Amino acid sequence: MNNDPFPDNRLCRLLNVRYPIIQAGMVWVSGWKLALAVAQSGGLGVIGAGSMSADILREHITKFRQASDLPFAVNLPLLYSHIADQIKVIIGHQVPIVITSAGNPATWTKTLQAEGIIVLHVVSATKFALKARDVGADAVIAEGFEAGGHNGRDETTTFCLIPAVREAVGWDYPVVAAGGIATGAGILAAQALGADGVQIGSRFAVTEESSAHEAFKQAVCEAKEGDTQLSLKPLVPVRMLKNDFWKQVSTLEAAGASAEALKDLLGKGRSRKGIFEGDLSAGELEIGQVSALIDRILPASEVMAQLLREYEEAKERLKM
Amino acid sequence: MNNDPFPDNRLCRLLNVRYPIIQAGMVWVSGWKLALAVAQSGGLGVIGAGSMSADILREHITKFRQASDLPFAVNLPLLYSHIADQIKVIIGHQVPIVITSAGNPATWTKTLQAEGIIVLHVVSATKFALKARDVGADAVIAEGFEAGGHNGRDETTTFCLIPAVREAVGWDYPVVAAGGIATGAGILAAQALGADGVQIGSRFAVTEESSAHEAFKQAVCEAKEGDTQLSLKPLVPVRMLKNDFWKQVSTLEAAGASAEALKDLLGKGRSRKGIFEGDLSAGELEIGQVSALIDRILPASEVMAQLLREYEEAKERLKM
Repeated sequence: MNNDPFPDNRLCRLLNVRYPIIQAGMVWVSGWKLALAVAQSGGLGVIGAGSMSADILREHITKFRQASDLPFAVNLPLLYSHIADQIKVIIGHQVPIVITSAGNPATWTKTLQAEGIIVLHVVSATKFALKARDVGADAVIAEGFEAGGHNGRDETTTFCLIPAVREAVGWDYPVVAAGGIATGAGILAAQALGADGVQIGSRFAVTEESSAHEAFKQAVCEAKEGDTQLSLKPLVPVRMLKNDFWKQVSTLEAAGASAEALKDLLGKGRSRKGIFEGDLSAGELEIGQVSALIDRILPASEVMAQLLREYEEAKERLKM
Repeated sequence: MNNDPFPDNRLCRLLNVRYPIIQAGMVWVSGWKLALAVAQSGGLGVIGAGSMSADILREHITKFRQASDLPFAVNLPLLYSHIADQIKVIIGHQVPIVITSAGNPATWTKTLQAEGIIVLHVVSATKFALKARDVGADAVIAEGFEAGGHNGRDETTTFCLIPAVREAVGWDYPVVAAGGIATGAGILAAQALGADGVQIGSRFAVTEESSAHEAFKQAVCEAKEGDTQLSLKPLVPVRMLKNDFWKQVSTLEAAGASAEALKDLLGKGRSRKGIFEGDLSAGELEIGQVSALIDRILPASEVMAQLLREYEEAKERLKM
């Protein structure tokens, strides 16, 4: 294998990592252990703050820092009420990189950057990518319809979204592709479409260092094509495994249910129940469509090694 | 530009064409003129029989033959009642290649192959790709969720479908990627994911040689991200532009309408009305999600030249 498969990559320089591979921040999945394992393997490890109080977030940042001085990021969904407390912790602990999502990038980007923090913003549409660029975000992560968890309403797939975002923001601005990427061939394809690098979620959700429940990891490994769906569209679109809870959602949706009715069914703590507590029947099992390609729980370091090996193989196959 | 950007490509050998680029068969769009223009540019031109009686199909085949002795294909949806008459015409005129879709590949593959005809089958899922291979189809065309027109129920995107199909059928079997591909970068990405070549629809629908109505072509050029949706799911999923007709469909679907109610609304001749007659309000405007990337009506030869140029540029960008 080439010693440096990604020579002179500007995303690597921006994030100060070896490989342009970002582990997605995922609720109940990506604590400091997963972030650390990815960082130690040369990618960008990400602590997912979406399922954390400010105190828990502080704990994860502290533990990562005790174990390593490698760069890492915090993923921060902007839709929760305790966001200001989380921001305080992030700034107080001089987190080097923040990935914002599910909200307006205008709100916090400048505040974070004023503290020397690099800010990436997750988008599901080209118009949002332009907005993120225009408010000064350092890069965008463009996430296609096939991605797990929260997603956009336009249903634009990775194959259509990445070239559109690239064309819109121009070649001078870093773009990260997300959604449907779980292999080294996928990384090469994303680059061919114009991405500087990738964000990978589902593949890292099924690692030994992921804090998801063992039963959830097994369910993801067993998932086949067609076993996830972007659901809860009248409320906020979420891609999840088709389990009993999904069936209830689906039945309500097919009958033309209101957002309110879906909210009542969803209740509180559904994703925790499914992903963290391993209730495969009543829990909300957020995961990407690419779970169909994943069949083994591995250490994150082995996942990273596979990605790099497959990337070289894909290049070799194309005689490039 | 390299004189042969696709050296030693087995799809080219199978189809006896210069470039592994298949123009999709599209109702009301791809008659002999478009097929001829694509064939003369080095791709596989395809006459779309889905909107043709056996007599009309005969006329298109005859006209293509009068103009050229290049190879071409007929796309044959297997769901219509006059299929046996179409097959008779195809065999009688020794059409070299047939692309079957929307049906069981077991029904006609052997009959056609016994006449020396090469048969490719379009699939939306890995299980159907395996079936096509097992009944002896010469190759499969795997079409992702983002593709225009009829599609599968699993909603698997090109980014997830192609690697899955490749893994399932093995490396010895030709796989063509379809759905979301309208640029040379897309061709390279599809190859990175494991495809031998591509099938391109929307981009060729908006050529001078396409028989679609001028108003339809303009609407496709003006379409932006989020302007198409896979609709009519309770009946048979079709991706179309969001126009007045789509709004009616969408309203019915959101209210939990039955397949029967949707069938009544659809009626007969909706796609003809929209695509061929240019009724942008009441017609069914079938087109792919990638229409957001298309903004000009060009001759098919110029589209092909662009695809090849972009393909070389994408390779160059990746320093391959």
